[in-house]
Amino acid sequence: MHCLIIGAAGMLGDGLAKRLIREGKVGTRKIAKLSLFDIIEPKKLEGGDVEIATGATDIADPAAAVALIEARPDVIFHLAAIVSGEAERDFDKGYSINLDGTRYLFEAVRAAHEKDGYFPRIVFTSSLAVFGSPLPEVISDDFIITPRSSYGTQKAIGELLLADYSRKGFFDGIGIRLPTICIRPGKPNAAASGFFSSILREPLAGQAAVLPVDTSVRHWFASPRAAIGFMVHAAMVDTSLIGERRNMTMPGVSATVSDEIEALRKIAGDEAVALINHQPDPAIEAIISTWPQAFDAKRALDLGFEADSSFEAIIEAYLEDYAPKIGG
Amino acid sequence: MHCLIIGAAGMLGDGLAKRLIREGKVGTRKIAKLSLFDIIEPKKLEGGDVEIATGATDIADPAAAVALIEARPDVIFHLAAIVSGEAERDFDKGYSINLDGTRYLFEAVRAAHEKDGYFPRIVFTSSLAVFGSPLPEVISDDFIITPRSSYGTQKAIGELLLADYSRKGFFDGIGIRLPTICIRPGKPNAAASGFFSSILREPLAGQAAVLPVDTSVRHWFASPRAAIGFMVHAAMVDTSLIGERRNMTMPGVSATVSDEIEALRKIAGDEAVALINHQPDPAIEAIISTWPQAFDAKRALDLGFEADSSFEAIIEAYLEDYAPKIGG
Ligand SMILES: NC(=O)c1ccc[n+]([C@@H]2O[C@H](COP(=O)([O-])OP(=O)(O)OC[C@H]3O[C@@H](n4cnc5c(N)ncnc54)[C@H](O)[C@@H]3O)[C@@H](O)[C@H]2O)c1
Ligand SMILES: NC(=O)c1ccc[n+]([C@@H]2O[C@H](COP(=O)([O-])OP(=O)(O)OC[C@H]3O[C@@H](n4cnc5c(N)ncnc54)[C@H](O)[C@@H]3O)[C@@H](O)[C@H]2O)c1
Repeated sequence: MHCLIIGAAGMLGDGLAKRLIREGKVGTRKIAKLSLFDIIEPKKLEGGDVEIATGATDIADPAAAVALIEARPDVIFHLAAIVSGEAERDFDKGYSINLDGTRYLFEAVRAAHEKDGYFPRIVFTSSLAVFGSPLPEVISDDFIITPRSSYGTQKAIGELLLADYSRKGFFDGIGIRLPTICIRPGKPNAAASGFFSSILREPLAGQAAVLPVDTSVRHWFASPRAAIGFMVHAAMVDTSLIGERRNMTMPGVSATVSDEIEALRKIAGDEAVALINHQPDPAIEAIISTWPQAFDAKRALDLGFEADSSFEAIIEAYLEDYAPKIGG
Repeated sequence: MHCLIIGAAGMLGDGLAKRLIREGKVGTRKIAKLSLFDIIEPKKLEGGDVEIATGATDIADPAAAVALIEARPDVIFHLAAIVSGEAERDFDKGYSINLDGTRYLFEAVRAAHEKDGYFPRIVFTSSLAVFGSPLPEVISDDFIITPRSSYGTQKAIGELLLADYSRKGFFDGIGIRLPTICIRPGKPNAAASGFFSSILREPLAGQAAVLPVDTSVRHWFASPRAAIGFMVHAAMVDTSLIGERRNMTMPGVSATVSDEIEALRKIAGDEAVALINHQPDPAIEAIISTWPQAFDAKRALDLGFEADSSFEAIIEAYLEDYAPKIGG
């Protein structure tokens, strides 16, 4: 089979590509070809038995998707997006990439479907940003979608389009709302959520980190490894079991900052915890206070999506997948 | 003030125009000018003190909205849409009018806002079609939006855009999900919901009507008079009380077909009821079985939106507003 990853130069796209190459299959289907596209040309990866095609493309250009599906990939992982902060600062850019880019892709697939019966699986990565306060403590699969950011709005519209195009039989779509990714590898970034990762990642590397919120703050997390697992599972799950509600919240670990710190202490000791400096930032506290704390992700669990088993497991996955061994 | 109705040749648009002319104000604000636009040129109405402008325009043309808001109307009633059946049959037309047309309008207003601070109230008529089964018996304001038609998808996307543009301060939007309109004046139509009106409208005019479903079927209704009342109230409600969830389900009358028939009997007697022929149609029964039965429209009620008081009141409003007097 042929898999296409759009957004393949991103953190999750890169990890997904590596996993698909390592395993050489999705479920029981052998991967013959993997196409990796992004606005930034993705790194050339060694594919072994898997033929790799790599290229740069801008999904905000209506012609881009037409070219991307020319070879009729069986599975399309649509991960390309600009994130929350940027979509909020640049309204036009957010709508152009996150909404129009997604719609161009769906339209290109529909045109191909009408031409020659093309019918790929499309995995769309949505976000918890589709939810907006006031929120219950535990959010069910039936809870209303009321985003409070342009990014969340664009993801929610992507979900609606995906469901309608799937209902009409133009393609076989599934939208997965990813928990906040933790520990996000790489450098600290300016996202309001950045500290959830940096209070672990920096101390694990012997560096200081700032905690801007109270330790009682609770949120919903998945490791990059689990998130990549969701995408692979979404590519092979039997969509006839899903019904018309094609979008769902992924399972995660509901943890407080305190839970994060205790997991860090178990794995890296008091020294590591001592590197966290608590400097409350009311602006960040205000933003975070509107975020979801926990979900009852029953639909996804019933379909076999698997979360990390604990916050310690999240840290261990990070150490195995990304971090230089501590002290070694 | 200046009010603009887009979709003014439609059933509700025409009724709204007449009410605005009759009352000459929205709340306490005097209407100086009323602009009536539709793809079909609306009938010329006598405006009395109100200056009337009438014209034809196609909102699927991106230039249309720019021209419509040239004179900077204070309130825009955006009612233009193609309905469910047509949007389902003609996928491109539905997206082009119901989604792109709405987005062009919002974009034109945003451009004007950025140019000269223009900040109108926009009243957007959404629909119960944003909801999709499985549904609880009574649907709360927090229930998830999962449309099962392209029309419902387009309305749900309009809602999301309206909320995001309002949150960003580009205009002051409110989206009102109208109950099914009953009794819809005029000729029988092919909509699956048509019988809810025709089993009353036809017998009230001494004609036979077909009932294709069981009398136990329950649904959510408003008279045209109540629906027009929602629009007027939406134009003047204090949106600072609404918060960021700019869209809401309107209150209605939850009634079974049996309730409809008993109300008809009270008002027009057994003779009228005898004109209803029960001819079950499994196709229509299947469609209707997925529809909402009742809502807890608390948010709208708290904001002062007022439903019809009973099914009899719905019939009486019809007789007063539209029907030739029975036997007279
Ligand atoms: N990381 C998270 O916590 C998280 C949570 C929920 C959802 N998601 C979603 O998962 C997906 C992947 O997330 P990530 O963390 O890897 O993000 P990322 O920012 O690392 O990757 C996104 C990729 O999309 C690419 N892209 C942006 N604009 C493009 C365009 N016009 N054309 C082609 N490519 C373009 C970027 O270059 C980037 O490589 C995104 O859709 C994101 O919205 C991520
Ligand atoms: N009647 C109902 O039961 C009901 C229920 C829920 C929501 N609504 C919504 O309320 C609004 C008014 O409903 P109605 O019953 O009066 O419908 P209607 O069909 O009588 O009126 C809609 C009007 O929009 C106009 N229109 C269509 N395409 C257009 C275009 N491209 N440019 C300009 N105008 C265009 C049509 O010509 C028509 O006059 C619609 O948005 C409808 O979706 C109606």
